[in-house]
Amino acid sequence: MIVKDLLDPLPPPGPDESLETLLSRGDVRFERIVSTGQASPPGFWYDQAETEVVVLLAGAATLRFADGDRLIALRAGALVEIPAHARHRVEATQADPPTVWLAVFFP
Amino acid sequence: MIVKDLLDPLPPPGPDESLETLLSRGDVRFERIVSTGQASPPGFWYDQAETEVVVLLAGAATLRFADGDRLIALRAGALVEIPAHARHRVEATQADPPTVWLAVFFP
Repeated sequence: MIVKDLLDPLPPPGPDESLETLLSRGDVRFERIVSTGQASPPGFWYDQAETEVVVLLAGAATLRFADGDRLIALRAGALVEIPAHARHRVEATQADPPTVWLAVFFP
Repeated sequence: MIVKDLLDPLPPPGPDESLETLLSRGDVRFERIVSTGQASPPGFWYDQAETEVVVLLAGAATLRFADGDRLIALRAGALVEIPAHARHRVEATQADPPTVWLAVFFP
């Protein structure tokens, strides 16, 4: 059984995003991602074999989806389903206070 | 593809908790629960066949687990894994502002 405060403590700030697997049960995996201004590299697109559901717990971010060149601005409380193989990238994340994502991956 | 703000709008206040299925994909189900002071009835214990992971997005709540008679106080940002058949109950939820839960169920 896992009990964890996802907002406190946060990892010390660094150049890279912080990624922590919170739990992994069968085919379902929960991760916490803490972003401090990072974005996907120019021209990079995620193309994932799993479905991912992200929930923004703090901060702000902008996702871009290749399909329709759709931009989605997210604030705390936003949930986005990213279907498998939906090409997307992170355009921007708020640095301070940090942006905290919960990501759930499943087949 | 689902894009939803879980914190705005909230359902109109009422006597009961609000429960909304956000998405259901294969064996994995995401629900939003909005509580406004409700608690489990006296003597009632949940005993669920699925694993449930809850994340508190707003408000505050207290869970009780039968095993060890463990009380867990939750604030926004808290994640709790409730394994299948872990008997538990909701002792209290903050009414105002409302308590918003994201619940993820899977086998």
